[in-house]
Amino acid sequence: MAEDFKLGPLNHVGVAVPSLPDAIETYKTLYGATDITEPFDMPAQGVKVCFVNLPNSQIELIEPLNEESPIHNFIQKNPKGGQHHVCFEVADIHQAVDVMKARGATVLGEPRIGAHGTPIVFVHPKNSNGVLVELMETPKGDH
Amino acid sequence: MAEDFKLGPLNHVGVAVPSLPDAIETYKTLYGATDITEPFDMPAQGVKVCFVNLPNSQIELIEPLNEESPIHNFIQKNPKGGQHHVCFEVADIHQAVDVMKARGATVLGEPRIGAHGTPIVFVHPKNSNGVLVELMETPKGDH
Repeated sequence: MAEDFKLGPLNHVGVAVPSLPDAIETYKTLYGATDITEPFDMPAQGVKVCFVNLPNSQIELIEPLNEESPIHNFIQKNPKGGQHHVCFEVADIHQAVDVMKARGATVLGEPRIGAHGTPIVFVHPKNSNGVLVELMETPKGDH
Repeated sequence: MAEDFKLGPLNHVGVAVPSLPDAIETYKTLYGATDITEPFDMPAQGVKVCFVNLPNSQIELIEPLNEESPIHNFIQKNPKGGQHHVCFEVADIHQAVDVMKARGATVLGEPRIGAHGTPIVFVHPKNSNGVLVELMETPKGDH
């Protein structure tokens, strides 16, 4: 069913930040963002996240939970933070993974539940011009 | 009118790439993208660009036109490419610039016509957690 796989909406852009409260303050006071979700921990992924809701998409702000967090290394290299990943929706994550693997992509690990409550996987940046790509199954009922 | 300024849609994510044809091929063959615009030169900005159209947004693929291009330096540092900027729409670019400056942001230069034919400016990454932000006036008739 490889021919059925296609990219859905740009769900969010992930931005690693050293401090969620400071980043939230920036989006509120500099950019006038009014709709920002409450931060919550994702211990299994070593991060604390929240979302800046835009009319068509989201910015995911990501703070490392501890020094074992993969985001910790990113912040060590980029102390102010920076763009971390781009997340595209797909209709069926397992189909997407099968297709990506069949096409030679390096899919990082098995699908797991992401911040939106649906399964996600990451695709190695070497496959997409240095961009870490998250694929996320579209939440049921959203489309 | 600072109180009227607010972030509009996430228009696109800019991705710097060493080769547009190779990046287009990646989005077509790996991700199954079917709607990619024809590349065109923007000599004033030293870049050649095209857009991968998604249902709600776009990925802007950006190749340096020459060694004077600001993207040339980016590719020197990131040979495979990488996320370069995030573009938010605003209703009125001049108002947005006034508000951003009043709020202490470092706006890079004066508004100029961008790839979508409407005025754009960039805001220094130091103001937004290391993320280079493009503000783009929403094309008339789009909303």
